[in-house]
Amino acid sequence: MEKLSVKAARQESAIGQTVTVEGWVRTRRDSKAGFSFIELNDGSCLGNLQVLAPQELANYESEVKRLTAGCCVRCRGEVVASQGGGQATELKADELHVYGWAEPETYPLQKKRHSFEKLREWGHLRPRTNAMGAVMRVRNRLCRSIHEFFQEDGFLNVQTPIITTSDCEGAGEMFRVTTLDPANAPRTEAGGVDWARDFFGREAHLTVSGQLEGEAYACALGRIYTFGPTFRAENSNTSRHLAEFWMVEPEAAFFDLDDNMDLAERFLKRLVGDVLRDCDEDLALFNQHIDKTVIARLEKIAESAFVRMPYTDAVALLEQSGEKFEFPVSWGADLQAEHERYITEKHVGGPVVLYDYPRSIKPFYMRVNDDDKTVRAMDVLVPGVGEIIGGSQREERLDVLTARMQEQGIEPDDYQWYVDLRRYGTAPHSGFGLGLERMVQFTTGMANIRDVIPFPRTPGHAGF
Amino acid sequence: MEKLSVKAARQESAIGQTVTVEGWVRTRRDSKAGFSFIELNDGSCLGNLQVLAPQELANYESEVKRLTAGCCVRCRGEVVASQGGGQATELKADELHVYGWAEPETYPLQKKRHSFEKLREWGHLRPRTNAMGAVMRVRNRLCRSIHEFFQEDGFLNVQTPIITTSDCEGAGEMFRVTTLDPANAPRTEAGGVDWARDFFGREAHLTVSGQLEGEAYACALGRIYTFGPTFRAENSNTSRHLAEFWMVEPEAAFFDLDDNMDLAERFLKRLVGDVLRDCDEDLALFNQHIDKTVIARLEKIAESAFVRMPYTDAVALLEQSGEKFEFPVSWGADLQAEHERYITEKHVGGPVVLYDYPRSIKPFYMRVNDDDKTVRAMDVLVPGVGEIIGGSQREERLDVLTARMQEQGIEPDDYQWYVDLRRYGTAPHSGFGLGLERMVQFTTGMANIRDVIPFPRTPGHAGF
Repeated sequence: MEKLSVKAARQESAIGQTVTVEGWVRTRRDSKAGFSFIELNDGSCLGNLQVLAPQELANYESEVKRLTAGCCVRCRGEVVASQGGGQATELKADELHVYGWAEPETYPLQKKRHSFEKLREWGHLRPRTNAMGAVMRVRNRLCRSIHEFFQEDGFLNVQTPIITTSDCEGAGEMFRVTTLDPANAPRTEAGGVDWARDFFGREAHLTVSGQLEGEAYACALGRIYTFGPTFRAENSNTSRHLAEFWMVEPEAAFFDLDDNMDLAERFLKRLVGDVLRDCDEDLALFNQHIDKTVIARLEKIAESAFVRMPYTDAVALLEQSGEKFEFPVSWGADLQAEHERYITEKHVGGPVVLYDYPRSIKPFYMRVNDDDKTVRAMDVLVPGVGEIIGGSQREERLDVLTARMQEQGIEPDDYQWYVDLRRYGTAPHSGFGLGLERMVQFTTGMANIRDVIPFPRTPGHAGF
Repeated sequence: MEKLSVKAARQESAIGQTVTVEGWVRTRRDSKAGFSFIELNDGSCLGNLQVLAPQELANYESEVKRLTAGCCVRCRGEVVASQGGGQATELKADELHVYGWAEPETYPLQKKRHSFEKLREWGHLRPRTNAMGAVMRVRNRLCRSIHEFFQEDGFLNVQTPIITTSDCEGAGEMFRVTTLDPANAPRTEAGGVDWARDFFGREAHLTVSGQLEGEAYACALGRIYTFGPTFRAENSNTSRHLAEFWMVEPEAAFFDLDDNMDLAERFLKRLVGDVLRDCDEDLALFNQHIDKTVIARLEKIAESAFVRMPYTDAVALLEQSGEKFEFPVSWGADLQAEHERYITEKHVGGPVVLYDYPRSIKPFYMRVNDDDKTVRAMDVLVPGVGEIIGGSQREERLDVLTARMQEQGIEPDDYQWYVDLRRYGTAPHSGFGLGLERMVQFTTGMANIRDVIPFPRTPGHAGF
């Protein structure tokens, strides 16, 4: 007896087969004609399989008629063409086995629609809802495409460390990782905590980025990408921040900033194209219930050439725009979200790559331009989200790098190994970072970042 | 002008093209006939591209003749059929640009061979060596195959949390994650550390396994897999232990233990088959210099049907073997590495799946058999490594699960959400875990686990 997923049993090609399908009941309705319709879902797709359970089933009265939302069952029968509208096939059950009941008095996911905020309290059950299931299938398609895109292009997947003793990037506050008992930490003679007695013999934290270590591997193996969790210990209770999120960071030797922009554009188009092609049913749900512009936005990305604009031109454009911004615009200041969104949403009406930012607002590792005032940074902006990718060509010149470190108060000796990459066989190289959750938000239209990751970690929340 | 990787330029199909190739110099030797041979590597494969640099190059005397191991260059020229042995093609350079020098007096990776132990001190440079480059390409091939295998089989990639407030699995000591200052931790009135004032409002740690959270997603979406970092704060300074390592954990609803064993066998065969097919050059290096049995061992896995044996039979077999073991064998005790290796290496001479272990030595979440004495656990053993996969069918019965928790001193109320999965629509389900680094060791023959991960974390070591 063949087992089919709900997705497979919904295909016309399944008609005529006698199969077993397993899943969870979404709804049941009884017909006076002596049978019940059960909507069955197993997560393989958004749509349900309609199961026709006739009263001839041995357990029709004792069990079938007691089925409620959330019950788990196994159905055996023939797949037939559906007479009703809305689906191509249905399963005519000749056997129905109940694996598990879901007491309707206490099961939280009853038919009533719950807010996403409420669903977060039931993080273990919320993937059973239509919207969260759809989010997770789109998220999976993105993860799959990320790996496929880079692998097909010869990038090696490298796992950079999660626990790190580096903290130079200054990308944000870090979590400490320790085995010391804070109620009774060992002390040095001077009275401070004796970190030499901690697990790693020194202070250790959770990584904020794998870039620096990724550079070491790109400067040996050519093209690499990391895809792993990163952390920020910032006390930000917003719909855009997580303490733990996933980031993909390609890094390639012999790539200049133009190569980097080309890569980022091809990459985003591939991700979006794959989701449009493979997740049409899930996207239709988002477009109908969550954000009516989401499909059009994705199609725009897939079709548009990304506009490329120097930061300096962007500032001029903003100054001349006549828009009232909350934050002032001036050359040398970082762009705010409102500025970025004006450019991508109103001025261009599509994706934009800004590049060549003032050196004073960018980290030491970005390559200094010949004008000595700007660095080879780039940000990719998209309508609806703003910045979705940030990257740069890296400074490969030993003398310029160490001068830039000192300019920013970083002691090159503390990053001997990173400086070594320029001392020995230095190579031009570039890379960027894409936050997975921002990308899931962009492709689904979900408003709160906590609803696009299985178990969100935020200040005060690390349940499950 | 087309850019080619070293790998592409080494193909006969490249002959006749004028191309640019970039990479790092491995060696240079000068011919009295008025040219130099440069061996160029860019990480795209183990083999080097031979570059013929004639004295007609403008910088021949000033630069080419100064090139040493580790220098980074760009070469332009025609790919021609190689006259010498050992390679199909070579590049006849008409231009050679030096990106970066590598002072031979201080550059650590000179021609002299270094021990793997010594190379660990140069974690940022060691991927430039033949052996570490080969390890990282095999590791990448495994990562790629892991994703491909599960995606093609309809498993969704799910990211379970790294920071967790669960600790029930008891799989090992955990690292604390905190933003409190241990020199000055806030106290409760009773004098203990006031965890309510830590970032997450309670004690938090790094995950030892994503299984429990993965089960929540399998019980909603059917088939999922996690692939991420896991942690052990054990003070183990051995060649088999890391404080941070990567683990892949599939979990599938409606899978019983037989399905789980089938999945594990197909999975291992796929990984091994892909490496044998795509990493033949790297494997030849391992087979020659690291472990002369590695290719034969992999071919054995690819070809053999895995023997399946109940734990009880394994114990009887060991008792009757006449072998002298360091640890005694008796029903009810866990098998030691020496026992496992006897079974897989001497008795079977190939891969073995042991299953149905005593309940007393296995965690609460494994399904109890009808004999009431054993649980549906399985371990996959392979020659040379021993246990490489551990998994089980999970206990889906609410009453049995809570009884098992209490038997093991775990309060079901502390895992309300996990218990809920059995309360509402419980489904039979199974899963297993594969440690990525153990798998890389198995496929390369590398003796020390610190040499199969980019930047190993062990007691006292978290550099880079």
